[in-house]
Amino acid sequence: MSELVKKAQLLQAVSSEMAVKTTEQKNEALRLIAKELLAQSTFIIEENEKDISKGRENGLNESLIDRLALSQQRISEMADALNQLTELNDPIGDVIDEWSRPNELQINQVRVPLGVIGMIYEARPNVTVDATSLCLKTGNAVLLRGSSSASYSNQALVQVIHDALKKSSLPYEAVQLLHDTSRETASEMFKLNEYLDVLIPRGGAGLIQTVVINASVPVLETGVGNCHIYLDETAKKDMGISIAVNAKTQRPSVCNAAETILVHEQWAQEHLGDLIVALQEKNVQIRACKRANELVDGLHEAVEADWSTEFLDYIVALKVVSNVSEAITHINEYGTKHSEAIISETDVNIADFFQRVDAAALYHNASTRFTDGFEFGFGAEIGISTQKLHARGPMGLTALTSAKYIVRGTGQIK
Amino acid sequence: MSELVKKAQLLQAVSSEMAVKTTEQKNEALRLIAKELLAQSTFIIEENEKDISKGRENGLNESLIDRLALSQQRISEMADALNQLTELNDPIGDVIDEWSRPNELQINQVRVPLGVIGMIYEARPNVTVDATSLCLKTGNAVLLRGSSSASYSNQALVQVIHDALKKSSLPYEAVQLLHDTSRETASEMFKLNEYLDVLIPRGGAGLIQTVVINASVPVLETGVGNCHIYLDETAKKDMGISIAVNAKTQRPSVCNAAETILVHEQWAQEHLGDLIVALQEKNVQIRACKRANELVDGLHEAVEADWSTEFLDYIVALKVVSNVSEAITHINEYGTKHSEAIISETDVNIADFFQRVDAAALYHNASTRFTDGFEFGFGAEIGISTQKLHARGPMGLTALTSAKYIVRGTGQIK
Repeated sequence: MSELVKKAQLLQAVSSEMAVKTTEQKNEALRLIAKELLAQSTFIIEENEKDISKGRENGLNESLIDRLALSQQRISEMADALNQLTELNDPIGDVIDEWSRPNELQINQVRVPLGVIGMIYEARPNVTVDATSLCLKTGNAVLLRGSSSASYSNQALVQVIHDALKKSSLPYEAVQLLHDTSRETASEMFKLNEYLDVLIPRGGAGLIQTVVINASVPVLETGVGNCHIYLDETAKKDMGISIAVNAKTQRPSVCNAAETILVHEQWAQEHLGDLIVALQEKNVQIRACKRANELVDGLHEAVEADWSTEFLDYIVALKVVSNVSEAITHINEYGTKHSEAIISETDVNIADFFQRVDAAALYHNASTRFTDGFEFGFGAEIGISTQKLHARGPMGLTALTSAKYIVRGTGQIK
Repeated sequence: MSELVKKAQLLQAVSSEMAVKTTEQKNEALRLIAKELLAQSTFIIEENEKDISKGRENGLNESLIDRLALSQQRISEMADALNQLTELNDPIGDVIDEWSRPNELQINQVRVPLGVIGMIYEARPNVTVDATSLCLKTGNAVLLRGSSSASYSNQALVQVIHDALKKSSLPYEAVQLLHDTSRETASEMFKLNEYLDVLIPRGGAGLIQTVVINASVPVLETGVGNCHIYLDETAKKDMGISIAVNAKTQRPSVCNAAETILVHEQWAQEHLGDLIVALQEKNVQIRACKRANELVDGLHEAVEADWSTEFLDYIVALKVVSNVSEAITHINEYGTKHSEAIISETDVNIADFFQRVDAAALYHNASTRFTDGFEFGFGAEIGISTQKLHARGPMGLTALTSAKYIVRGTGQIK
């Protein structure tokens, strides 16, 4: 039997044990993992250094090396995150709904774990601890499939997690790392419906699309954000500029950063120059439509592809539109249904935008950068779902749960 | 451009129009479809007869012919169901949750349609009307892919639906039937993530598995039910027998019918003979384990495969177990996580069963036959989900919805 099937079977077997653990048992395990990470940090860093020298030999660039690197500080941050997670409400066992029927059946809908979660991720070893902790907190078993370039680090981290779990009342077998990081085995994992309840890919668009396209196991898709800021005719000048600049430049590399700014023609007449200056002060390259180029000199001319590009960089596309309807049409055509904002003082336009734009999160007079589990107050984040099934938008702990119906009778038959 | 892509694009284009229709506009459309079905029933039945004679020529058996056949009465039933659907609460626009953040962002989570739903089903033309009506009620656009053996019927029904929608304020393009019923086109439809938000297969296990295994579009999986009735040591004799007989025989062909009866050894000592007699009176063939065969003469001996078979017939597997724990282990090993019942008067056993059995619906002292959208009080049923993502158990109208976050600010930036 392959390593994959063996581990998946084991996970399924312990998942029912995990499902009945109390909140205190799960929190104790999280605290023990935090403690063990700190106690064994030297070992973890030594193993991580093997991945780093392997990466340097293979010519990884410094930004990838940085994503791969673990330090005392990063390990402390992991431990802190684990301890913070113990403070969050445990959703398992929550009664979602309850009612009774005319035949006196009493129906309760109760939150339960998903079961076995397959995590597929790239060369960030911190995901090993992060994903594991969220799965354990929600009573799930987890199969980790990390990148081969982080093998030493991941194996060390899982060994430390196992050491901690052996001191806890959770079964240490509830966390399994695939040592076989071949593509063939990943493809097999995508189709392992018999043992896996869900797959969660975490990483770049390429990884996520590979999983979405090839998996028969249900996928929680997190993904790209081609987000827009629409400055309506009545947008307050300073607020509009401040939100557009923030959404573009506060952290350009993330999915909730803005990629296109749409500007109402009237607002553009009066304030476009000031917006451009504010963006250029932050070193943003502006790729503008013809109408914008007629209003302001010296901008790059946008090409069709710019409207659908997630730049993730100090680059923004800019388009002048005639009204809110044109903005909505543009967003629904080019957007990725992630986060979209309207800056306006006109109620009817705001309502129209909220109703007709199809996206996970819609904003009025605020930056798209708030689409985030922590900013939404969930206390944790699995990712930001860009699909419409199960969970949409920022996913907190409840996204890692399912439900079951508990029906109490007194002999009812049909 | 293929018929599939052309229709899918059209559906996506009208889906945003559908999303903003009012409850009254949608209900009016449903009433108009009901009226049009009755008005054009002669035409529908004529077209249906073409499918039936084609079916007879191709040697379809009478039970399949019966599933295919439309009569005045069946058309009336469809019309009644449409009118009943107008009475149900429209979930679109419901506020699921609302809160504010320390930075004064106001967050509302609002229910919205899924968008474009792909329905894939077998030779039951009533599904054409049923699926369409549920999708329209929830503001979705729908792509119908029925069986080639029901082509005339489906085309007639969709023509009638279009005639009705043209009199309504919904876009008639929101309902599209694929005339191309080839396997190749179905396979293409499974991968049409660009235009389809979800696929819902309705039919036998073979169809559902084909879709689950091959689709990259998210699937709402409805499926097989290998359901169990466990008669615990303290089960009341008459109640236990009545529920076991009901769950097996009231309608053996459906997914929530019982397939295996598990009996506590003590209960078996005292009452197994009476249970057997009651089942045999209903012409149920009993495939029993060794211990049951020692207690009662003349039963068939069960083979391993019987524990995992969904008989959908007057056949039941029967096993004597030593305690509730053995029953739970058996169910979690062989069950399909659909519906499971314990008949018992022992609180600790009932609690154990509820906690440790992993299934969509768990029953105490009631028949598994109640796992059904109507019995649960949902007023409609899309199907019974056997997966853990999005919806689990009977699915009402809300299973055809997603959500979006509406965030109201006053200039907040990050």
